[in-house]
Amino acid sequence: MKTQVAIIGAGPSGLLLGQLLHTAGIEAVILERQTPEYVLGRIRAGVLEQGTVDMLREAGVSARMDAEGLVHDGVELLVGGKRVRVNLKELTGGKTVMVYGQTEVTRDLMEARTASGALTIYSATNVQPHDMKGEKPYVTYEKDGQTHRLDCDYIAGCDGFHGVSRKSIPSEVLTEYERVYPFGWLGMLSDTPPVHDELIYAHHDRGFVLCSQRSLTRSRYYLQVPLTDKVEEWSDERFWDELKTRLPQSLGDRMVTGPSLEKSIAPLRSLVVEPMQYGKLFLVGDAAHIVPPTGAKGLNLAASDVCYLYRILVKVFKEGRTDLLEKYSEIALRRVWKGERFSWFMTNLLHDFGEHKDAWDQKMQQADREYFLNSHAGLVTIAENYVGLPYEEIV
Amino acid sequence: MKTQVAIIGAGPSGLLLGQLLHTAGIEAVILERQTPEYVLGRIRAGVLEQGTVDMLREAGVSARMDAEGLVHDGVELLVGGKRVRVNLKELTGGKTVMVYGQTEVTRDLMEARTASGALTIYSATNVQPHDMKGEKPYVTYEKDGQTHRLDCDYIAGCDGFHGVSRKSIPSEVLTEYERVYPFGWLGMLSDTPPVHDELIYAHHDRGFVLCSQRSLTRSRYYLQVPLTDKVEEWSDERFWDELKTRLPQSLGDRMVTGPSLEKSIAPLRSLVVEPMQYGKLFLVGDAAHIVPPTGAKGLNLAASDVCYLYRILVKVFKEGRTDLLEKYSEIALRRVWKGERFSWFMTNLLHDFGEHKDAWDQKMQQADREYFLNSHAGLVTIAENYVGLPYEEIV
Repeated sequence: MKTQVAIIGAGPSGLLLGQLLHTAGIEAVILERQTPEYVLGRIRAGVLEQGTVDMLREAGVSARMDAEGLVHDGVELLVGGKRVRVNLKELTGGKTVMVYGQTEVTRDLMEARTASGALTIYSATNVQPHDMKGEKPYVTYEKDGQTHRLDCDYIAGCDGFHGVSRKSIPSEVLTEYERVYPFGWLGMLSDTPPVHDELIYAHHDRGFVLCSQRSLTRSRYYLQVPLTDKVEEWSDERFWDELKTRLPQSLGDRMVTGPSLEKSIAPLRSLVVEPMQYGKLFLVGDAAHIVPPTGAKGLNLAASDVCYLYRILVKVFKEGRTDLLEKYSEIALRRVWKGERFSWFMTNLLHDFGEHKDAWDQKMQQADREYFLNSHAGLVTIAENYVGLPYEEIV
Repeated sequence: MKTQVAIIGAGPSGLLLGQLLHTAGIEAVILERQTPEYVLGRIRAGVLEQGTVDMLREAGVSARMDAEGLVHDGVELLVGGKRVRVNLKELTGGKTVMVYGQTEVTRDLMEARTASGALTIYSATNVQPHDMKGEKPYVTYEKDGQTHRLDCDYIAGCDGFHGVSRKSIPSEVLTEYERVYPFGWLGMLSDTPPVHDELIYAHHDRGFVLCSQRSLTRSRYYLQVPLTDKVEEWSDERFWDELKTRLPQSLGDRMVTGPSLEKSIAPLRSLVVEPMQYGKLFLVGDAAHIVPPTGAKGLNLAASDVCYLYRILVKVFKEGRTDLLEKYSEIALRRVWKGERFSWFMTNLLHDFGEHKDAWDQKMQQADREYFLNSHAGLVTIAENYVGLPYEEIV
């Protein structure tokens, strides 16, 4: 089998890239290790930057998002019991974010792909890219007990951090930058109305809290927990009690509780590998970088990688601009590092690090909260990063 | 002898406090361990915030500063060879800084004090505050072989970090927060015209550079150097060569070199003790906190302490508002921590930490430079801190 772009991974990055390429008349085949049901079962981010929304519209998959997604003009920061509303729209000259779950984005993209007739091969095992540095790269995989070969011009590695794409690059070529945080997030999804119509990021001595949401009837709450905690130790009752303890009474009183649909603990880390390309293999999103979820940048950085790679491939296939290929990593990384910076900044600002920060650093953390939340300019820096810094043009 | 306020230390803080109290009809005696010549020989800061300028005007000692001081509307940041002008005036809605050496401020204050007939006792040794927690505090000192006693209502400790005031407070009462940086600043003063009409803060792989000035004919340059360097190892020629190496050629070419008037190496550190008071003893400026010089906050934080203590003492003596006394530390520290934050931020932003920062932190440092220097809001946060955040009102 032969295609123009082999995409490894049918998560939102791979599907969005496939859909964009399809609208431009470029053929792509997606190989996915899991089933569609498994992919849709993963519970992830829910806040889309303006730029991500724009890309989904450009891909023609925005109808349901535009109908059901919730446009948020602001977000709240809660420190020392004081609530500060970050008026995103006012502070950024009109930009907002869209609350629409990653699961829904994925579903919309899957449906669009099915409708377009483009090929996604699910349950493809032992996927392996080959000859990335050569003239004729290809990908092999197994399906139904047979080994198959997919010839292509370029390979997009959209298969996440544990995927095969990055692992296929000789390790001596890659530099890895990493920061592991000494805590995790315990997330709980429940069919209860969100406690507030906007997201609340709260700092508390007992640990960080995020009051997020997927819709007007589905809440997503997070608690900072020690890495040693096990999810089995957190009954629904304990979760709701701890959540209320870390929030002001005015919020706790109006919180609607209910059974959890899902609970899980995720460690927090920051990670970037450089470069994001190797010959004709291009890494996209989590395959090359991880952010802690504070700041909601994970899916959005994947979307900007997709955007850059898509715009470059269009110029390559339509205008013969193969010179642009070698610039992908450099261009994508400029925005990635900004997103990593903001995610690291927000994580530092709002979490309790206990003994993992010395007394001086704790005072600086407190001084940062004091300054950024009480300065107009400080709030603008938070707002403009939260809605997403502008994309570069590919010229 | 009896006075209302005993001030320990005749540096700029003690002299400014004395002068302000004098204008308000409150009597103060200043005790200084050194001679006036020694005090004037210390070479220190040269950038005054708007608030400091305002306090000097309020104290009636601004005539020469207003005539000879240089108002700077902006400051330059130089990173990776790129010059970014921080237009202080535009970014802060009209605020500026005044370049006028601390030595000159001290000289003006000394002259005003002499003219006012207020008493400063120089060469007072073994100064020691007593009974700070009692009704009748007093200070003893030795002069010309005799022990003297100065009775007072309150004691202001303006005697710097190595002074006796802070050391007179039982150590179990104080909490100390400290950060030591793994480098120092080698400063050189010379009677050469400054290389640029505004200050330049430059990041370079070989280390930080500050191109400062005291007047249109006197330059003050600083180089980041390892703590192990000795000033004897730095000939004037080596200093100028290294300075040019760390600056773009366009600046190096126009730099006028000449013999140094003074060269010295100062370590960089951040330090705060809490609280800043003990009974009727109040710590002011360096006696309670040290900042690294990046950001020019040392003298300016001392001036805001002076301002708060002065305003409180006026209300105490004129309106009987003794309730305000216990609030001094809390009020002063709020602004101190903001200044400490900014000085720490600027130091981190612009210095080379080598192996003292891991690869992740170096990337974040680079991302901070990239973000703050290219975002309007980021530049506003730098500008508003550089000109000085507003003082609180004492009510």
